[in-house]
Amino acid sequence: MFKKRISIEQVEEGKELCPKFDEKGLIPVITTDFKTGEILMHGFMNEEAFKKTIETREAHYFSRSRNSVWHKGETSGWVQKVKFIRIDDDQDSVWISVDIGDGASCHVGYYSCFYRSIPLDRDISNIELKFEEKEKSFDPEEVYKGQPNPTKL
Amino acid sequence: MFKKRISIEQVEEGKELCPKFDEKGLIPVITTDFKTGEILMHGFMNEEAFKKTIETREAHYFSRSRNSVWHKGETSGWVQKVKFIRIDDDQDSVWISVDIGDGASCHVGYYSCFYRSIPLDRDISNIELKFEEKEKSFDPEEVYKGQPNPTKL
Repeated sequence: MFKKRISIEQVEEGKELCPKFDEKGLIPVITTDFKTGEILMHGFMNEEAFKKTIETREAHYFSRSRNSVWHKGETSGWVQKVKFIRIDDDQDSVWISVDIGDGASCHVGYYSCFYRSIPLDRDISNIELKFEEKEKSFDPEEVYKGQPNPTKL
Repeated sequence: MFKKRISIEQVEEGKELCPKFDEKGLIPVITTDFKTGEILMHGFMNEEAFKKTIETREAHYFSRSRNSVWHKGETSGWVQKVKFIRIDDDQDSVWISVDIGDGASCHVGYYSCFYRSIPLDRDISNIELKFEEKEKSFDPEEVYKGQPNPTKL
């Protein structure tokens, strides 16, 4: 499914899909909501996850905390149905647009993982993040009960 | 400007900015166009680039090909004026929304770096990328003349 990277022209101007995975075998992925255009999350895929995403049209990622391919929604039920996939100029990052129905995408319980902003109009020597979502979409304790939190310090 | 990461609660539910840089000192960045909401590019920042972006409200990245902080637009003139910055749940990726005026953001000459899609309704054993932008926004030979192409094979 993936072609060998041979030339810069092939990679940038061509029609061959020849993604570049980094030294850990991963490629960064941006996921947006097809309906709202909002950014839902940022993740990574390995070769297997990328292929499975194309084959099944459901988003698969590589979980760095679990060190395995992860079919998004397998626990929460909020599978991400892929509406389109784009790849960037040098084919080392991917953008997928997904339909999550009435679901959410953040393990903390918010709709988007990007629920906090950095205020730029205040004293930047003492930044206080601002919450951009008023409340959580779901209770993560209930949805992910018994599962370890993926966040690493 | 950046706080030490102490607890999962602090990172996920708190108001302290405590970004996680990877083992290379980088954090992935998604850049969208403030006016259209379109994804323009995916890049990385190191600590210095992230701080400069907040301080100057102009996007700075870390160029992996040049191994240095890179003030986007310093060659092309299309500086990215930062309209907002968001950070994700575990604070290991950043989303910036920028104003590029009438400019473009892709070194190949397109408006967005994500100018090609992977068709999902065809034979996936023989993928042919589809160009989503009809033509380039500018001539990269002219704008970046004499500079090495950043794409790596």
